[in-house]
Amino acid sequence: MSRMIAEIRQQPEALERTLAGAAPAVAALRRALEKRRPRLVVLVARGTSDNAALFGRYLIEIATGIPVSLAAPSITTLYGADIDYRETLVVALSQSGESTDTNLVLERARHRGALSVGITNERGSTLARLAEHVLLVRAGAEKSVAATKTYTGQLLLLYLLASVLGGSLRTSDLERLPGAVASALRLESEIAALSERYRFMRQTVVVGRGLNYANAFEFSLKLMETCYVVAERFSSADLLHGPIALVEQGFPVFAFAPPDATWPSIGEALGKLKQVGAEIVAIADSGNRQVAACATRVIRLPRRLKEALTPVPYIVPAQLFAAYLAEQKGLDPDRPRTLHKITPNL
Amino acid sequence: MSRMIAEIRQQPEALERTLAGAAPAVAALRRALEKRRPRLVVLVARGTSDNAALFGRYLIEIATGIPVSLAAPSITTLYGADIDYRETLVVALSQSGESTDTNLVLERARHRGALSVGITNERGSTLARLAEHVLLVRAGAEKSVAATKTYTGQLLLLYLLASVLGGSLRTSDLERLPGAVASALRLESEIAALSERYRFMRQTVVVGRGLNYANAFEFSLKLMETCYVVAERFSSADLLHGPIALVEQGFPVFAFAPPDATWPSIGEALGKLKQVGAEIVAIADSGNRQVAACATRVIRLPRRLKEALTPVPYIVPAQLFAAYLAEQKGLDPDRPRTLHKITPNL
Repeated sequence: MSRMIAEIRQQPEALERTLAGAAPAVAALRRALEKRRPRLVVLVARGTSDNAALFGRYLIEIATGIPVSLAAPSITTLYGADIDYRETLVVALSQSGESTDTNLVLERARHRGALSVGITNERGSTLARLAEHVLLVRAGAEKSVAATKTYTGQLLLLYLLASVLGGSLRTSDLERLPGAVASALRLESEIAALSERYRFMRQTVVVGRGLNYANAFEFSLKLMETCYVVAERFSSADLLHGPIALVEQGFPVFAFAPPDATWPSIGEALGKLKQVGAEIVAIADSGNRQVAACATRVIRLPRRLKEALTPVPYIVPAQLFAAYLAEQKGLDPDRPRTLHKITPNL
Repeated sequence: MSRMIAEIRQQPEALERTLAGAAPAVAALRRALEKRRPRLVVLVARGTSDNAALFGRYLIEIATGIPVSLAAPSITTLYGADIDYRETLVVALSQSGESTDTNLVLERARHRGALSVGITNERGSTLARLAEHVLLVRAGAEKSVAATKTYTGQLLLLYLLASVLGGSLRTSDLERLPGAVASALRLESEIAALSERYRFMRQTVVVGRGLNYANAFEFSLKLMETCYVVAERFSSADLLHGPIALVEQGFPVFAFAPPDATWPSIGEALGKLKQVGAEIVAIADSGNRQVAACATRVIRLPRRLKEALTPVPYIVPAQLFAAYLAEQKGLDPDRPRTLHKITPNL
């Protein structure tokens, strides 16, 4: 069995530990923010952490009404621009805490007036030293190159960050996430069987919207890194605005399709994709009764959650699918060609 | 000949007209901004206009140091969130001015305190009515579904906007852009010949960074819409952080490779891509003497420009390539399957 699958399975415990351990740092951050409420939140990251940041970009604006920007690191690292970060909270996310350009952006933002937070899985990392506040993912060592448990850990900490910034999230809701992930993990054998059908898939499109838009990026990154599938990712709105032209009869499309806020948009896109003959695999839960009519296959999570909480459990079947598809293709998801993982202190 | 090619060729005149006609609106906007200097700029758009917005996201932060955010429309349209847009400039970009969700985001931002600018090719459009200030692209009617001359017109107006916001751009530099585009258009027959080689290309990756990152999105959108090629787009930094795993011997990669600020990053990525056997087509100019060593083919613009001015002429060979590749594939780039253009008042 790959390390990737082992680490996917560790997520309920990793989330429990991360949530249980976060209270002191969250309380300290809350006190700091009471004195310096930000007018802007800037998130900076690379790779899988950048997909977590994309989730944070949606969550924080929706939950708090504070504008959010995703930093473009080259503006600092290559152009040397000086950005006015007064009354700004800058949040850097990095599994290893050793991403050079992420750390440089955080450091420069501090010098330009920002309050700084680091979200990392490594308490002894450079990022943990540079940031005034550290929210620690307690996922344990992640040895597969394909990040999984650190991604869901970062999402959980972003919920806590949104709550500290005034978002109306209940702790009791967050406490249900480890159980929701455990319940999603029970789909493993169904997904392992489903993956065989896609053994010769070379290209695909992944669709998401709103809070699950980041999951479309994360699923497609996993398919690229571990399965070498050319995987596009679009919001359902952007897809209809142009790229749908490349979808022809039998083209495989994966979609995150929770009920509620985003379903009208996702459902419209799936309807049009079905008309042009796409093969659609939808990730949904028991609350979405309409998805079966427009999807070829539905991966259905057994437990219904509020839409705001779906991103954490919904990525789990996608992670499992990528790991099992890599095996079907005879690839080692823990060691993708060309890539090396940054693992400090190991 | 396709309308797309005819409209690509009209760009020097469209840019001349847009620049010449902008002065009164730019002066009015300058007066308004003197009284209400923004702390944040928010850009909102879809499709090709969203790629122009991505360029603006880099340009404005680099040139002015004011933080910029790309709006996520679903936060307003699906989640109904109320975002604090005091001391904010919101800029909506739409070729037709009739993009429903773009207009809704602009309208809500005005209600929440933002100063508003519309950038559109249609002076009688809904967007032109909703925005307090209108910067008009004067490209003439764009009849091909594949937007080309409105994209470069939007880029030009974003330079003017950055200048109004305090960026140190010279008008004399902008006046050189129509000539630089005319000179890029002289590559047409070379590009038409080159396109034949890619007749059976099904997938590709387009690489850009910094100010040309948006061009990577725009080139890949054109390849998706008009040629049905599954075209990924990555910054050179993000590519090395994961997706490079999908590149194997003979995989085609296109890269924007101007000299100066971004070349160290682009050059490093091209070096690694060459090691894994990628076929690399680089768009560069006579100022980049190193690109030939790592690219399979170089499309070389005859005229050297400052890096800050390259995005407008550099997209021209990409537009031409997409239009001619569509012809090689027997497709009509003016009428991609599944798509319809919004053309108000026609």
